[in-house]
Amino acid sequence: MQLHPMWDAYPNLQTDLKDVLTTIEKSIQIRDKQVEKNVKDLIHAGGKLLRPAYALLAAQIGPDHDRDRAIAVAGALEVLHMATLIHDDVVDDAPTRRGIPTIHSKYGRNYAVYTGDYLFCICFKILSSHANSVENIEFNSKNIEKILMGELDQMRMRYDINVTVRQYLSRISGKTAQLFALSTFSGASQSKATRFQVRNAWNIGHYLGMAFQIIDDVLDYTSSDDGLGKPVLNDVKQGVYTLPLIYAMQKHPSEFQPLLEKQLDMSDEDLEQLLVLIAKYKGVEQAFTLADKYTKKALREIKKLPAGAYRDQMYELTSSILKRNI
Amino acid sequence: MQLHPMWDAYPNLQTDLKDVLTTIEKSIQIRDKQVEKNVKDLIHAGGKLLRPAYALLAAQIGPDHDRDRAIAVAGALEVLHMATLIHDDVVDDAPTRRGIPTIHSKYGRNYAVYTGDYLFCICFKILSSHANSVENIEFNSKNIEKILMGELDQMRMRYDINVTVRQYLSRISGKTAQLFALSTFSGASQSKATRFQVRNAWNIGHYLGMAFQIIDDVLDYTSSDDGLGKPVLNDVKQGVYTLPLIYAMQKHPSEFQPLLEKQLDMSDEDLEQLLVLIAKYKGVEQAFTLADKYTKKALREIKKLPAGAYRDQMYELTSSILKRNI
Repeated sequence: MQLHPMWDAYPNLQTDLKDVLTTIEKSIQIRDKQVEKNVKDLIHAGGKLLRPAYALLAAQIGPDHDRDRAIAVAGALEVLHMATLIHDDVVDDAPTRRGIPTIHSKYGRNYAVYTGDYLFCICFKILSSHANSVENIEFNSKNIEKILMGELDQMRMRYDINVTVRQYLSRISGKTAQLFALSTFSGASQSKATRFQVRNAWNIGHYLGMAFQIIDDVLDYTSSDDGLGKPVLNDVKQGVYTLPLIYAMQKHPSEFQPLLEKQLDMSDEDLEQLLVLIAKYKGVEQAFTLADKYTKKALREIKKLPAGAYRDQMYELTSSILKRNI
Repeated sequence: MQLHPMWDAYPNLQTDLKDVLTTIEKSIQIRDKQVEKNVKDLIHAGGKLLRPAYALLAAQIGPDHDRDRAIAVAGALEVLHMATLIHDDVVDDAPTRRGIPTIHSKYGRNYAVYTGDYLFCICFKILSSHANSVENIEFNSKNIEKILMGELDQMRMRYDINVTVRQYLSRISGKTAQLFALSTFSGASQSKATRFQVRNAWNIGHYLGMAFQIIDDVLDYTSSDDGLGKPVLNDVKQGVYTLPLIYAMQKHPSEFQPLLEKQLDMSDEDLEQLLVLIAKYKGVEQAFTLADKYTKKALREIKKLPAGAYRDQMYELTSSILKRNI
């Protein structure tokens, strides 16, 4: 089983994450063995497993650390993440994910829709067979609802040139930070951590999720897929306006309007021009500054946790994944 | 609030079903008010509400009849049904459902995928806020998993001319009977019915679900949408081979093969020819005979329940919805 090399620096976590993958693999049984294989390939295609990792670390906050239960809950969170990825790929018509063909490009969107649904159920199945209480599950389903509201919001705001920073933050809070917060929360709450610590854990996930998504969105403007040095610009091509663009637009909306109004008909020159404008108004720098603020908040919250090796690992992990260059 | 006129004959159930719709309506809050309206229109567009009705009736089997809880669980079941319908419409590219435009034809498949996901979560949210125990939820999510397996199976077997009666029954057992069984089961188990009665309730739902789906599938060969008297034949056009065809095919496969091999290219004459063959080998009659068997099994199980007005209603309802002409 091949994990992302980043985990070589965390041997304990590496062992646990391998068990998370085994748990997930065991719970997925699709009669169509081709689809099953594809789902399992996706599991092993080197996703970073950040959400389960944070759940595992947070499960060591309280006095009642039950390794098996922690691994199960971490697995449920990754399955949920996979379900949303598969449905996102249907929506975005993405040809590949983690370097392998997406379910929908290989088997049609029909399979992809139902396979995503199936994984949602697997998530609830794992959760309910390991949850402490009904309250815990209720909490989880309310959260998952918020995650989906974030996705619906994102679609609703496509091509909206009046989108505000506040709306953007609310959207990524639902779409991304919610699942990270759910991960650290679930870990902490099952370990019988104090009420304060559980809230603490929730905040860690929330802040790091915000920073993570902002950085991810910035990378769409700054990094290239093909090695030719050209930024990907997938978001803006799909009408999803993220923080660097929103910040820049605020400075001088009328300069952006004629470009963005073309929507799907934006040419390569238009995109080039957009990058020039974003650079002119320092959209990327400003976005990084906000990401840094969230990172610092996350790190500050981590320091409030009871001391221990797990806390040091969480601190180190958070610092390293939120470095700008990854 | 307009319910299907069939409920006029059951005033108590009618009142309860109206409260089920109110519960569902309250639990659905989508920021995009247009989509919310569309989802709510779908709720009120005169679906038969059979699944919640059976859950409500079954909730009167045991001694502990809690009306509020019964209504909540019935609502969760209908929401689950709606979620699968919305995703089915995405998969089938259906333009309308219950006479109103489908979510995906009106807002795009993107919205439809996420709206279905959202309703899945609403279902779990309602269930978990009213469930007796974690075991109950676990049971439910395992069942929903089976329902989705039925959908995946159906797609896997598209255009498979070797599909057997057994495979067909296993598919509709997952796709349809499972949700009916879950409805009667959930009703009974929350009413503190005995273990025997709960199993009894499960069987009722299973048998009536089997009969219901077989009849529904037969209607695709015998009834017309447009009043012109031409059968719809939606299933066979989409490569979904149902019982009348499977029975007829078994008699003389080689007569069917050249027609069905054309798959999407079947002409109107080919379809006409297919109907002739199915009539020749009495596929429809044989399918009705099997539906009757399941109906009788369901009625026999209902008679085993403790006597009461609810039992008489269940018996009458089951007899009337499984009459061949609806």
